[in-house]
Amino acid sequence: MGWGDLGAFGEPSKETPNLDQMAAEGMLFLDFYTANPLCSPSRAALLTGRLPIRNGFYTTNGHARNAYTPQDIVGGIPDSELLLPELLKKANYTNKIIGKWHLGQRPQFHPLRHGFDEWFGSPNCHFGPYDNRERPNIPLYRDWEMVGRYYEDFKIDLKTGEANLTQLYLQEALDFISKQQASQQPFFLYWAIDATHAPVYASKQFLGTSQRGLYGDAVREIDDSVGRILKHLQQLGISKNTFVFFTSDNGAALISAPNQGGSNGPFLCGKQTTFEGGMRAPAIAWWPGHIPAGGVSHQLGNVMDLFSTSLSLAGLQPPSDRQIDGIDLLPVILQGKLIDRPIFYYRGNELMAVRAGLYKAHYWTWSNSWEEHSKGIDFCPGQSVAGVTTHTQEEHTYLPLLFHLGRDPGEKYPLSFASEEYQRAVERLSGLAQQHKDSLVPGQPQLNVCDQAVMNWSPPGCEKLGKCLKVPESDPKKCSWPH
Amino acid sequence: MGWGDLGAFGEPSKETPNLDQMAAEGMLFLDFYTANPLCSPSRAALLTGRLPIRNGFYTTNGHARNAYTPQDIVGGIPDSELLLPELLKKANYTNKIIGKWHLGQRPQFHPLRHGFDEWFGSPNCHFGPYDNRERPNIPLYRDWEMVGRYYEDFKIDLKTGEANLTQLYLQEALDFISKQQASQQPFFLYWAIDATHAPVYASKQFLGTSQRGLYGDAVREIDDSVGRILKHLQQLGISKNTFVFFTSDNGAALISAPNQGGSNGPFLCGKQTTFEGGMRAPAIAWWPGHIPAGGVSHQLGNVMDLFSTSLSLAGLQPPSDRQIDGIDLLPVILQGKLIDRPIFYYRGNELMAVRAGLYKAHYWTWSNSWEEHSKGIDFCPGQSVAGVTTHTQEEHTYLPLLFHLGRDPGEKYPLSFASEEYQRAVERLSGLAQQHKDSLVPGQPQLNVCDQAVMNWSPPGCEKLGKCLKVPESDPKKCSWPH
Repeated sequence: MGWGDLGAFGEPSKETPNLDQMAAEGMLFLDFYTANPLCSPSRAALLTGRLPIRNGFYTTNGHARNAYTPQDIVGGIPDSELLLPELLKKANYTNKIIGKWHLGQRPQFHPLRHGFDEWFGSPNCHFGPYDNRERPNIPLYRDWEMVGRYYEDFKIDLKTGEANLTQLYLQEALDFISKQQASQQPFFLYWAIDATHAPVYASKQFLGTSQRGLYGDAVREIDDSVGRILKHLQQLGISKNTFVFFTSDNGAALISAPNQGGSNGPFLCGKQTTFEGGMRAPAIAWWPGHIPAGGVSHQLGNVMDLFSTSLSLAGLQPPSDRQIDGIDLLPVILQGKLIDRPIFYYRGNELMAVRAGLYKAHYWTWSNSWEEHSKGIDFCPGQSVAGVTTHTQEEHTYLPLLFHLGRDPGEKYPLSFASEEYQRAVERLSGLAQQHKDSLVPGQPQLNVCDQAVMNWSPPGCEKLGKCLKVPESDPKKCSWPH
Repeated sequence: MGWGDLGAFGEPSKETPNLDQMAAEGMLFLDFYTANPLCSPSRAALLTGRLPIRNGFYTTNGHARNAYTPQDIVGGIPDSELLLPELLKKANYTNKIIGKWHLGQRPQFHPLRHGFDEWFGSPNCHFGPYDNRERPNIPLYRDWEMVGRYYEDFKIDLKTGEANLTQLYLQEALDFISKQQASQQPFFLYWAIDATHAPVYASKQFLGTSQRGLYGDAVREIDDSVGRILKHLQQLGISKNTFVFFTSDNGAALISAPNQGGSNGPFLCGKQTTFEGGMRAPAIAWWPGHIPAGGVSHQLGNVMDLFSTSLSLAGLQPPSDRQIDGIDLLPVILQGKLIDRPIFYYRGNELMAVRAGLYKAHYWTWSNSWEEHSKGIDFCPGQSVAGVTTHTQEEHTYLPLLFHLGRDPGEKYPLSFASEEYQRAVERLSGLAQQHKDSLVPGQPQLNVCDQAVMNWSPPGCEKLGKCLKVPESDPKKCSWPH
């Protein structure tokens, strides 16, 4: 979902009354970022509080290439990483993930091995349908075992866009919350729905209800579901004890627009890029009785902050034996403070850009290659800024492209190299970049090797369902990451 | 000011708390339009309730050319047009215009000849400074007579952007409202401030206060002023008897961005064009006790509707001897109705596009010429949609470019000519266009002739101030309208 997809963020159809209400009752973050312009790395960062370059969710198969966890990926979240739910267990939390995991699908990467107590959802995106010979359909799990596969047992009608998955995920959430409330047990719910990821889907009752087409139907169903979850917390009398945060794992995928892709509002480009459209995300914090209603924050925030903030809420300390990139947002949320911290924009193994205050310096620019672009793969449809949305990887290390995101949120007008403003801002930003790089210890890259044998042929539980497929011979290769 | 310039419409700095509050207490119009992508014609339409092609605010010097009222324009608002304040006098209203008139500057076009009782402001934009030999500085009037000139008596510091004009206009507004309240006299105030028009200015107290630079400072001062006016109405106890509407006369002038131009949010291009960025405007209605708080409307609205709506509020009928394009919005505002009506997008003498429902058909496309564009004059900076933002005038009369503005508010994805959806929508839109054209009686074009002799050399009152300048010989010529 993109920054511009909610009414509160200026989507012109204004069809998200529940999320807008959540913002009116809570705090809207206008300068909140994902940790990566892509799903898997951003989710790994959210749960570890660490940049993908540290937790291993990147590739070195090419320079500045986006990588994620397709079915044939061999890697996943390393055991050495400490995930938020693992840590929350120290404070007696019950942890559940509903929806897309995306941190690896081989047995050692299973969410229940990494701190979650319950899971209902899938390890990968709901791509498909596949033929189960060249490629198996993606399984859905309940806890340790698969309970079926997309397109087979969990239908998605690609023609109409109908699927009732968000309703299943909603019911799971409501049930889990009820159970935790009944047992007076603290809980962490990671509600990782994916209806707005192509192929976009919505339940029958939402199909055709949006001005925005199928994508808008999916947004409306998510909006409605969030409203129901918040109402459920209120009805159970635990809203004042429950911190809720809504955000996205990357900018809207403009490549899927207009029918399957969202909006990044006034920002440049979308998912896959390190322009604002790729990484600035909608974000709302809600905690009645604690967060003053109608709050608006310009704090530079990041999904990794949810790691540190959640630990803080649980009265826990972040691990001290490793670098944590997230910060505790509670002083921001509860006391309106502003914490000076940079945002690092990575694409694969490269630090592409840095933001501090209102300035953003691009050290590398790239949308995608001419070759891809000529095939119609366009991460910036209708947008073209000379020297900025480049189709070759352009290095600007010694003379970064500098933008003032207040005057120019759309990154269209690089500041003059000769200006005093440029000199002053670049000195600061390049200092932050250098400091970051000097102290950086990259993790073992997890997204380099692909192997047809690791695909979801025979997930645990497949025997009970008669859904085990023949595993082909192992044939590990370097994954191909075209952009 | 552009659609995307207010926090309520998704401006990422969210610096307009007063206008956002006005929206929260009133009704936000998301699909509201100017009558033209340019200032003078839009204002003439607002005050007459009629399209510029009818009231004469267009040119036939070229095809589909934007024209306005620079200093040397010979034409202006014809006596045959009935302006809102003229009609309101029948209901005993006192009418004041504060700020930019822009409906002609020769004596017969004076606002006090067209229904206004009071005026503090100027006939033209605050361009300058001029040398008073080749071109005189623009005068400001109080009622019938000039009281000084921009840059001479009313300072605008082009280097710092400092000018206290908005404060003068605010004080005028507060004083007028107080006076009317004291005399129990109904009033119409046309508060036509222009701080966000290049050269953009703000008062000292607002300079440097915005994240958005000088343009943002100007927006903040306007926002603050609107807040003061609404508060004044409340303090005087007349807010429940006073209908207030906030809108703009064209989209943000992206050609002046980033320092002197605003934002059109997710929309395509800006001022001067008939894409959404040129003509969709921010709009808020406020009337405590009558308009339900927090209302949002998708009514297709137009500045011309303020003519009909104001008459309706005053218990008056619109003139029956002429075509009126505005509609009465009261059923929309008070009862939440939706009125099915088209929007006509004109550029000069050409109907460029038509919107009905969520569909918009472009019959002509043009941003500006290659010749202008090569000089850096760009109405769509950073945006380029093949076959849409064209640099030659492209006719699409028989196969219009069709967009669905719900799924594609940015006008990037024309619908397939072959689709059933295209056929159905175009049939309706082209029917509306044909019907409109068949019944259209264009007014005498007012913006064809320019003459150096009609400039503001010796406005009434200049003698008293010793500010009369020598009038050069009359030399009427066809005005040059490059785009």
